[in-house]
Amino acid sequence: MENQVRSGVGIDYTGMMSNSQNPSGFTKAELQSLQIELDRAQTSLESRWEAGELDFSKLLVSMKAQVPEIIKYADAAASKFENFVVLGIGGSALGPLAVHQALNHYYYNELPPEKRGLRPRLYVVDNIDPVRFKELFQILDPSKTLFNVISKSGNTSETMAQFLIVRDILRQVCGDSYAEHIVVTTDKAKGNLLPIALKEGFQRFVIPAGVGGRFSELTPVGLLAAAVCGIDIDQLLEGALSMDQWIRETQGVFSNPAQLRVALARFSWQKGKTVSVFMPYVDGLKTMADWYAQLWAESLGKRFDRQGQEVHVGQTPVKALGVTDQHSQVQLYVEGPNDKVMTFVTVEKFKDTQLIPLDSELPEDIHFLGGRTLEELLFSEQKATEYALTLAGRQHQKIILSSLDAYNVGQLLLLLEWETAYMGELLNINAFDQPGVEEGKNGTYALMGRKGYETRKKEIEEYGETQYYLRS
Amino acid sequence: MENQVRSGVGIDYTGMMSNSQNPSGFTKAELQSLQIELDRAQTSLESRWEAGELDFSKLLVSMKAQVPEIIKYADAAASKFENFVVLGIGGSALGPLAVHQALNHYYYNELPPEKRGLRPRLYVVDNIDPVRFKELFQILDPSKTLFNVISKSGNTSETMAQFLIVRDILRQVCGDSYAEHIVVTTDKAKGNLLPIALKEGFQRFVIPAGVGGRFSELTPVGLLAAAVCGIDIDQLLEGALSMDQWIRETQGVFSNPAQLRVALARFSWQKGKTVSVFMPYVDGLKTMADWYAQLWAESLGKRFDRQGQEVHVGQTPVKALGVTDQHSQVQLYVEGPNDKVMTFVTVEKFKDTQLIPLDSELPEDIHFLGGRTLEELLFSEQKATEYALTLAGRQHQKIILSSLDAYNVGQLLLLLEWETAYMGELLNINAFDQPGVEEGKNGTYALMGRKGYETRKKEIEEYGETQYYLRS
Repeated sequence: MENQVRSGVGIDYTGMMSNSQNPSGFTKAELQSLQIELDRAQTSLESRWEAGELDFSKLLVSMKAQVPEIIKYADAAASKFENFVVLGIGGSALGPLAVHQALNHYYYNELPPEKRGLRPRLYVVDNIDPVRFKELFQILDPSKTLFNVISKSGNTSETMAQFLIVRDILRQVCGDSYAEHIVVTTDKAKGNLLPIALKEGFQRFVIPAGVGGRFSELTPVGLLAAAVCGIDIDQLLEGALSMDQWIRETQGVFSNPAQLRVALARFSWQKGKTVSVFMPYVDGLKTMADWYAQLWAESLGKRFDRQGQEVHVGQTPVKALGVTDQHSQVQLYVEGPNDKVMTFVTVEKFKDTQLIPLDSELPEDIHFLGGRTLEELLFSEQKATEYALTLAGRQHQKIILSSLDAYNVGQLLLLLEWETAYMGELLNINAFDQPGVEEGKNGTYALMGRKGYETRKKEIEEYGETQYYLRS
Repeated sequence: MENQVRSGVGIDYTGMMSNSQNPSGFTKAELQSLQIELDRAQTSLESRWEAGELDFSKLLVSMKAQVPEIIKYADAAASKFENFVVLGIGGSALGPLAVHQALNHYYYNELPPEKRGLRPRLYVVDNIDPVRFKELFQILDPSKTLFNVISKSGNTSETMAQFLIVRDILRQVCGDSYAEHIVVTTDKAKGNLLPIALKEGFQRFVIPAGVGGRFSELTPVGLLAAAVCGIDIDQLLEGALSMDQWIRETQGVFSNPAQLRVALARFSWQKGKTVSVFMPYVDGLKTMADWYAQLWAESLGKRFDRQGQEVHVGQTPVKALGVTDQHSQVQLYVEGPNDKVMTFVTVEKFKDTQLIPLDSELPEDIHFLGGRTLEELLFSEQKATEYALTLAGRQHQKIILSSLDAYNVGQLLLLLEWETAYMGELLNINAFDQPGVEEGKNGTYALMGRKGYETRKKEIEEYGETQYYLRS
C-alpha cells in the first residue's frame, strides 16, 4: 500500500510566487489580501446556488441518481450499434470529446472491437464542413449507427441541419425503424427537438434547464457518450462531487482550491496577464484544453459588468500541449511579451511506462537517454520548462492529478467550472450568458432567409461587399 | 469552363479597413506610409536570400527536382507497408500533419485500403506520453510499418528516444531486416542520426542545412509523408513556387501579398493587437492553424532585437476553427478586450456539398434550413461572424483559397512563411532562431543526467522544490 498514490487533484503554485529567481511573483500576503473579496464571492455564489443559477453543481446529486438509467440504456445501445455519433456543437461536443480522450484508448476508434470491450466507435461531429460530413458516411454504415442529437433549444442551426440530413439518410436506409437510430438530448419541456422526438418516437435524455452548454458535461450531454464508450461515469460523478464538496465547504484562499486558482487568476489579470495558457503534459488531456478554452473564453469574455458598465474583460485562453509545444510555443512564452500566465496539467504517475533501451555503440550524445523511461524524459522536460520560465520571470502553476482516471477527471472538471464561476464574481460579470454570440446567430438566420430577419439581411449584404481584395 | 474557379489564393482585407461601421480600421494612406520600410525589408530579404538565409524559398526549385526520386521511393514504400509513422516533433510533425489533413480524407486512417488508393495509414507521433506510445503498438503491426525518423541534428531528445525504442522493437520483430523499416530524414553531413543511418543501412533523405524546422514542410521532411499518402507533391511545390515568384517579383503593399499581410500585422501589433487569431472555416485546415502557430510564435517571439536591445516582441497566435469555435471563442472576440486581429481562411468552393432536406411538418423555426446546403450555412455563418465583429469594432481579414487542393496549399504555406520573414525584418529581429528553447533543452539534459550538465542539474533541483502546494 505504501507506494499507492492517493487519488485526487492538487495545485502546485510555487511558480506563481515570489522567490529568488523570480522576485516579481506574488506573496502570500498579497493573496491573503483578496480574502474579503473571496468571502463575498463565496456568499454570493452560495445564494446563486440556492436560487438555481449554479445547477452544474447543485444537480450533481440528481445526476448521480440517473447513472443506472443511463448505463442501462448505454449498455443496450453498445450491444446493438457499431458506431455512436454525437451531433452537437460547443459544449455538447467539447465535453464528450475531452472526457473520451482523457479516459479511453488514444486510438480508440481504430482498435478492433474486442479490444474496446465491444463498445461502439465514437464520432463527435461538431462542424458543418460539407466535405467532412460526406466523408463520415464513407466510413460508417448508418444502419449500424446510433446518432445522439444534442441541443437544448433545438434552435442550433448546425446541429439541426445535421439532424435533418441524418434523419433523411436513416429513413432511406432503415425505413420505418429509423427512429431507433436517434437519441436526443434536449430540454425537458420546450424547444424544437422535443416535439419531433415525441412525434417520431426518439429515445430522449434531458439537459437540465439551468445548466448551460459549457457547464453541461456532467449531465446526459456528456454522460451518455461516456457510458456508451465504457467510461465509469459513476466514478466521474464521484470525483466531481468530492471536488464540489471541497470547494463549497472550505473557507480561505489557501484551503479552497477554487479560491486559490481564482486569486492567482485575478492578480495575473490585474497585472497585465491577458493570456491564460492551459498546457497539459498528458496526451489524453489535449482536448481538455479545448473544453477549458470554451469555458474560460465564453464565460468571462464580456463587454458589460452587472451594472451595465462597459468593461471588455476576459483573458484569452490558449491551448497548448507539453512536451510537443515546447517545440512550437515555448520560445514565445519565455522571450515574448510577459503577458501570459501558464497552467500545466500533469499526472503523478502514468498508467504505463516505456523504457528507452541502452546501446553504447550509438553516438555518445544520446547515451544519456538509454536506461531511462519516456516518463522520466517527459517529467524532466516539464520541470526544465518550468525552470526556464521562472528564470525569464514568467509565472506558472501546475494542476496535478494523482493519475488520469475517471475520478480525477471529474475533480478537474468541477475545479475549472467553479473557478470560472468565482472569476465571474470577482469581475462582477455574468459568467453564464453569451450575448456576443447572438449577433452572429441572428446574422446567420438573416442570410439563410429565416422569416423576420429581412432588414438584417439587407444590412449585412450591403456591409458584406468586398472593397479591398488582392488576388494574383 | 465559365464556372471554373481560377486557382490561387486571395486576400480580402475589407474587415481591416476603416468604414462606416468600424471607423477605427486602417486607411489606404496608412498602409501606403509603410512602403519605404517594406521596400527596405524586401531589399534586406533579397540579400539574405542570396546569402542562403532564406532557403525555404531559394531551394524550392531544387526540391522540385527531387520530386521524382521521392515519389519513386514513396510508391515503393506504399506498396510494401500498411503504416507510415513519422517520429518527429515541432515542424517535423506539424507540417506533415497539416498538409495531410488538408488534402487527404478526413477519416483517412479509417478508410479501407482500397478507398485510400492502397496507401499506408499515417501516424505522426510528436509526443512522448508513454501511454500513447504503448497504445500505438496496440493498433499497428511493426512488421508492416515504415518509420520515418526526422531530426536534423539527431539531438532532439524526444525523437531520439522514440527512435531507440522503435529500433529495439523492430529488431525483435523483424530480426536482421529491421533496417528496411526505418527511413531517416536528417542533415546531409552531420549530426547523430547520420552515422547510425550509414552504419545500419537506413534509407536517407536530406533536410537542407539552411532550412529550419518550422520552414521545412516543403523539403523531404514533409514531402516524403505526403507522397507516401498519395498527395500530389509536384502540385504542392508548383503552388509554392508560384506564390514565391509573386512575392519576390512584386513591388508595393497593395500588390505584394506578403507585404500586404505584414503591413496589416505590423499596424495591428503597433495598435495593441497582441493576439493573432488564425481561424480556418474548413475542417481540413484545422491542423494548418497549429503549423501557423508554431511559425508565428517561434519566429517572432523574441527577447532581443538584432542590435541586442531587449524588446520582448511577438504576437500570441491563437488557433480556432469556424464554425465550431463560434460556439466557444467568438463571445470573447466580440466582447472581450480589443486586443485581437483575426485571420479567417476560407475556400471559394468546397469539393462537395450536402443538401439539407425540406420537411414542412417540422417546427417552423427550422424551416429556413430546408432546401439550403451545409455550404451555404457555413458561408452565412462566416459572413455573419465577420459582420458581428465589425459592429463591435474588431478587425479581421480573410485568406481565400479558390479550393482546397495541393496547388493552393503550397501557395498558402509560402505566403505565411514569407510574411513571417517580413515581420522579422519589420521588428528588426532574427526570425530564424529559437534561443528561448535552449534553456529548456539544457535543463532536460541536466535532469536526465547527460554528462557536462551536473551544475545545472543541482541548480534546477534546488529550485524545483515545491514550496506552495494545495491538496485535499
